[in-house]
Amino acid sequence: MVVHQETTPRKSRADAERNRLHILDVAEEFFAEHGVSGPMQDIAKRACLGPGTLYRHFPTRESLLAALMQARWEELDARRAEIEAEHGDPLAALELWLTALGDYVTVFDGLPGPLREALSETTSPLAITCEWLVETTGQFLAAAQAAECARPWVRDRDLVLTVLASAWVSDAQLADERSGDSLRAIVREGWHMSPARRRFSPAS
Amino acid sequence: MVVHQETTPRKSRADAERNRLHILDVAEEFFAEHGVSGPMQDIAKRACLGPGTLYRHFPTRESLLAALMQARWEELDARRAEIEAEHGDPLAALELWLTALGDYVTVFDGLPGPLREALSETTSPLAITCEWLVETTGQFLAAAQAAECARPWVRDRDLVLTVLASAWVSDAQLADERSGDSLRAIVREGWHMSPARRRFSPAS
Repeated sequence: MVVHQETTPRKSRADAERNRLHILDVAEEFFAEHGVSGPMQDIAKRACLGPGTLYRHFPTRESLLAALMQARWEELDARRAEIEAEHGDPLAALELWLTALGDYVTVFDGLPGPLREALSETTSPLAITCEWLVETTGQFLAAAQAAECARPWVRDRDLVLTVLASAWVSDAQLADERSGDSLRAIVREGWHMSPARRRFSPAS
Repeated sequence: MVVHQETTPRKSRADAERNRLHILDVAEEFFAEHGVSGPMQDIAKRACLGPGTLYRHFPTRESLLAALMQARWEELDARRAEIEAEHGDPLAALELWLTALGDYVTVFDGLPGPLREALSETTSPLAITCEWLVETTGQFLAAAQAAECARPWVRDRDLVLTVLASAWVSDAQLADERSGDSLRAIVREGWHMSPARRRFSPAS
């Protein structure tokens, strides 16, 4: 009897894990097609699972997004290590990191919104992701500030917000791509310490 | 509101106009409480009208928002005239205008989103509002650029986008108010021509 009791939960755990991974695959595909605000019900339908099963694994949209973004951490963390190893110049390193961060937060349409909320809402499942983004940005920023190529009053959190805001600006399907670039150019002039040295024109 | 049987066309037009104004009053109150993404059905309910009547007057959320924002034009335009009359200094004038614009786009929670979309989508009912915002910003910007206190490559549309992005950043109910201020400070350093002259610290 004890053996049976063990076998059943084990099987159920394996099923549950299989379902979980299946939901993640389907959700990733769905968010990539429809953006993060598509109906959760449709994800359950596409996964051929009841909504109950979906919500048991991922009670909220944020928890589903958090699992997907955490799965992508590894890639971003590898990029971070690469930038750190290759770039002695802290300004170039910070810029490359902000570009990598910009790519990360635009994996799905509409992602900047939940990430912005998670930056303020420490109980959000996405908060851990955001904390790591802020912390890593802080490391690159501190090096740039120590080298006097970033303004001393700019905070790590502010820079992450500028990346989210630039992503939000170019997030609309109809948006002209230059919008995000223009905002990034203005923002870059903003945190950058010696703007007179470089004349970057986003219109060129 | 009870809509009486439409006995004569004249009476029906008067009723229609009364309904229209009533919807605008109710919608303004509703958006102020719930933000612009609240369900349209709830606006009809609160106005004691069928959804059909609401949609006949305002077929989309954007058309309702457009009517509300146009009603507020007058106030913003008065502020524009005031700034123009009082400030010979083009830098101060541009900064005051951007502040007035920031207030205008944060009248309702969630307003930056539809405005950003209307900036790219010329068929949106909000597009006329956005065009006017861009055009007026362009006048203040051109004066600041002529006086060499704004970078020459910054476009009117970009500045409106930075205002929307800063509003979006501080739009979340949970957002720390400093977030918008920080972004505005970075952005200001970005478009501003002589950042070395002023040391503005958003953390002070």
